[in-house]
Amino acid sequence: MKTTIKAWVFDAYGTLFDVHSVIAAAEEMFPGNGRSLSQLWRQKQLEYTWLRSLMGRYADFSEVTRSALAYACEAMDLAITPGQADELMSTYNHLALFPDARDALIALASSRLAILSNGAPAMLGPLIQHAGLEQTFAAVMSVDELKIFKPDPRVYALATRRLGLQADEIGFVSSNYWDAAGASNFGFTVFWINRNNVTADLVGVQPDFVVSKLTEVARPVIS
Amino acid sequence: MKTTIKAWVFDAYGTLFDVHSVIAAAEEMFPGNGRSLSQLWRQKQLEYTWLRSLMGRYADFSEVTRSALAYACEAMDLAITPGQADELMSTYNHLALFPDARDALIALASSRLAILSNGAPAMLGPLIQHAGLEQTFAAVMSVDELKIFKPDPRVYALATRRLGLQADEIGFVSSNYWDAAGASNFGFTVFWINRNNVTADLVGVQPDFVVSKLTEVARPVIS
Repeated sequence: MKTTIKAWVFDAYGTLFDVHSVIAAAEEMFPGNGRSLSQLWRQKQLEYTWLRSLMGRYADFSEVTRSALAYACEAMDLAITPGQADELMSTYNHLALFPDARDALIALASSRLAILSNGAPAMLGPLIQHAGLEQTFAAVMSVDELKIFKPDPRVYALATRRLGLQADEIGFVSSNYWDAAGASNFGFTVFWINRNNVTADLVGVQPDFVVSKLTEVARPVIS
Repeated sequence: MKTTIKAWVFDAYGTLFDVHSVIAAAEEMFPGNGRSLSQLWRQKQLEYTWLRSLMGRYADFSEVTRSALAYACEAMDLAITPGQADELMSTYNHLALFPDARDALIALASSRLAILSNGAPAMLGPLIQHAGLEQTFAAVMSVDELKIFKPDPRVYALATRRLGLQADEIGFVSSNYWDAAGASNFGFTVFWINRNNVTADLVGVQPDFVVSKLTEVARPVIS
């Protein structure tokens, strides 16, 4: 009994853009450790957003990402120089777009398209420009103006305000289960992109639809 | 310039009680997977407390722990029966006390001692009884009455109210870095127990003291 979807809102990191693009750069720097470093870096990056939100100690996503990298290198006993850290951080400004992203964005473009991201504006700008998507989105929304990270409901509320829509008129797309759950919790119509057939988390709320690719996102048929 | 510590407040899981006590039971059930299952179970248990707090979807620690176990088994492709899940869950009611805990509690007993835990009362009761510590604590405080988990500042505020003390009059002891950070963020005088020489997280706030054993916790010398 949902209403028609009037805008599609996408998560950025992990959904449109592949955060593990950093593996190649990390592997070149620390041979044999690229994948593990990338995974631990990402895990800690997310943990730090959650912990800082809960403690009321917001720092922007760039700072959180840099802290997570420093932690991961120290925990893995990898000596990283400030220059190397800058180099890995800079890969975040030109992450690869997932192969299915461009086609999906074209297919859904009859509705408004937007991004809602943990990323700070200074990170999102270069990322979108590098992918040549400057004309694609009606809005690029960052948690930075709220000083709180996903999955706090206030983050998702930002999209309803900015787009002037009810929650269930927004189709939200994320490959991060916890983000998809947070968006469902708020009331969006949610597509979880489960590219690698991973196990769904059990946090008391589920996305409405599960697909394996961005190009499978479609206007849901509601009876 | 801190005031005197008038009460010691301990975290329970991982600090006084060894959550990896479950390894033996898990290993017997799933040979070769006991340690990995225990680790993933614990990691997801914590993640789910953070995510549920952020989403405003509290469920008690028992339910969160059971969900995390179900996730971990599915992710590791271990077929667990309801009876086996009950068996692993029941180990939480009689986790081993760390070897240094009893001596530490005796040494600090001239001040009031208390527990402040994510655990629900129905989990903490049997745990404390099993360890024979029913007479040790002036207060056993659970987040359950607040319906929010650590490291939300409201959790730590519960201890100041219940004990009738200022934040810095409370010495807080945790082996979980994120909990120690949350307690510092609130204003407690914090000892982080770093038993296994792990890397400290970088979340913008640090514990006041770092020691490797519970028996090294002591009244700080303040100049």
